[in-house]
Amino acid sequence: MSLLVVGSVALDSVETPHARRDDVLGGSAVYFSYAASYFTPPRLVGVVGEDWPKAHTSLLDERGIDTSGLQVQPGGQTFRWRGKYLPNMNDRETLEVHLNVFEHFDPTLPDQYRDSQYVFLANGAPTTQLRVLEQIHRPRLVMADTMDLWINIQTDELRALLKKIDGLVLNDSEAILLTDDENLVRAGKRTLEMGPKFVVIKKGEHGAMFFSRDATYVLPAFPTEEVVDPTGAGDSFAGGMMGYLASENPAEFTPHVLKTAIAYGTLVASFNVEDFSLDRMVSIQRADLDGRMRQYQQMLSL
Amino acid sequence: MSLLVVGSVALDSVETPHARRDDVLGGSAVYFSYAASYFTPPRLVGVVGEDWPKAHTSLLDERGIDTSGLQVQPGGQTFRWRGKYLPNMNDRETLEVHLNVFEHFDPTLPDQYRDSQYVFLANGAPTTQLRVLEQIHRPRLVMADTMDLWINIQTDELRALLKKIDGLVLNDSEAILLTDDENLVRAGKRTLEMGPKFVVIKKGEHGAMFFSRDATYVLPAFPTEEVVDPTGAGDSFAGGMMGYLASENPAEFTPHVLKTAIAYGTLVASFNVEDFSLDRMVSIQRADLDGRMRQYQQMLSL
Repeated sequence: MSLLVVGSVALDSVETPHARRDDVLGGSAVYFSYAASYFTPPRLVGVVGEDWPKAHTSLLDERGIDTSGLQVQPGGQTFRWRGKYLPNMNDRETLEVHLNVFEHFDPTLPDQYRDSQYVFLANGAPTTQLRVLEQIHRPRLVMADTMDLWINIQTDELRALLKKIDGLVLNDSEAILLTDDENLVRAGKRTLEMGPKFVVIKKGEHGAMFFSRDATYVLPAFPTEEVVDPTGAGDSFAGGMMGYLASENPAEFTPHVLKTAIAYGTLVASFNVEDFSLDRMVSIQRADLDGRMRQYQQMLSL
Repeated sequence: MSLLVVGSVALDSVETPHARRDDVLGGSAVYFSYAASYFTPPRLVGVVGEDWPKAHTSLLDERGIDTSGLQVQPGGQTFRWRGKYLPNMNDRETLEVHLNVFEHFDPTLPDQYRDSQYVFLANGAPTTQLRVLEQIHRPRLVMADTMDLWINIQTDELRALLKKIDGLVLNDSEAILLTDDENLVRAGKRTLEMGPKFVVIKKGEHGAMFFSRDATYVLPAFPTEEVVDPTGAGDSFAGGMMGYLASENPAEFTPHVLKTAIAYGTLVASFNVEDFSLDRMVSIQRADLDGRMRQYQQMLSL
């Protein structure tokens, strides 16, 4: 079933305690769509500048990602982010942000994308996320991500968005900020009261929590000793989750089918962090995810 | 099968953002033995002063805990700890410590305890833990806890202990300190190389990780919105874990039986944090643990 992602496409520079990479392929829509592509061919909407290497688009095309919604802005420069991970590889500092063409990103969806059944509104201004949503005819499942910036400066717009989406994914620190509650179980339930049908709190190396009216549960991350670069973990998580859902297109979004989706998201993210940029994801297939799923199921069987 | 715990018996004063309690029943051996008592009647070795309320001993006796190894030191005062939890309820500050009779705790085991098959050396000086171990005839399973203090000031003695025990339980921050590695999967494996047959890293609200030569896995904590007082969570975890093992007395300590034990430890701890001191544990039965186990299994089924 059709899956659309609208979000950033970026050139990232990443420093870790052990290595660094400059101007590598990144951005929320890129990580999301690549992660989803193991399950279903997604549609990508984003914007880049004239400096964008065509090889990056080819890499996405080769995975079946529909990049006809990737706009190249003449005379513009691509969004750039530079960050540095602390030794725990969970916390990071942003060293530089150049929004460039992403600053005035106000996407008009190609006509052929307006019937998308599954939609992910990657992290961005809630005003923009709302405008994207208005352009889509009757989607089956809309999920969104957000961040501390929007919780702080677009509180009302974010509240309006939360009433119009099915699922929200956000980090633990963002859930605490949004609800002013440091207990994550309560924070998740309070977020749920703001409108979405379900909420997923991402805890990085500690896994993810799920909240709906019927269920509360937590799944651990897949234990890996090879954490090379956590950039894009949250977006590849969401991509794996929604890619699985779009490919299954279940009659009903039961807590159990959403849990399986979250598990796939967890496993795609666990591969993604094993190398910089998309390097690890490029080297795997759906069968690798299914293999790790069997290990994960065995790990959690009691 | 016989289960022995040697550790502290204390009067704790606890402040949280919402409430405080003074001089309530606490200590590692108390939390451990109470948690274990749902599964098997444990033997407790510890020391208290003349100020020790007899009612506390009665509370333990009523659960079938053998307190004949609880020594009352004439003229002495009981170990006292005062701590304050930060709003996240995971981090805490120690405000006061009065070791009192615990300062020179050098336990001589009652003769009838020397045949104990399951032994837990609760957090204490490795020198003391080693002396206790020498007094026990052929135990089937010895587990120990430790803390940052001993990692820093009794490194060699701790290393000697690690070669003589089957399992070590320690906090995430302690595992990082012990191995100088911030990746917990690597930290667990490095700890394993120091001698024990298995290692359990406790991550508080984020659950626990298990490491042995054959298996690495992580289990999440049971999600609870009622975290009233985390004091004793680690010791009640260990008590539930070893209580289950001692009651089952399996022919072999396979990764699977140890995982079930860790799950029971997780669930006893999840009840323990729902109130101060032993107040929540006093109100539950084995059936409550089994009920929560069914919820936990369902949560983790994929």
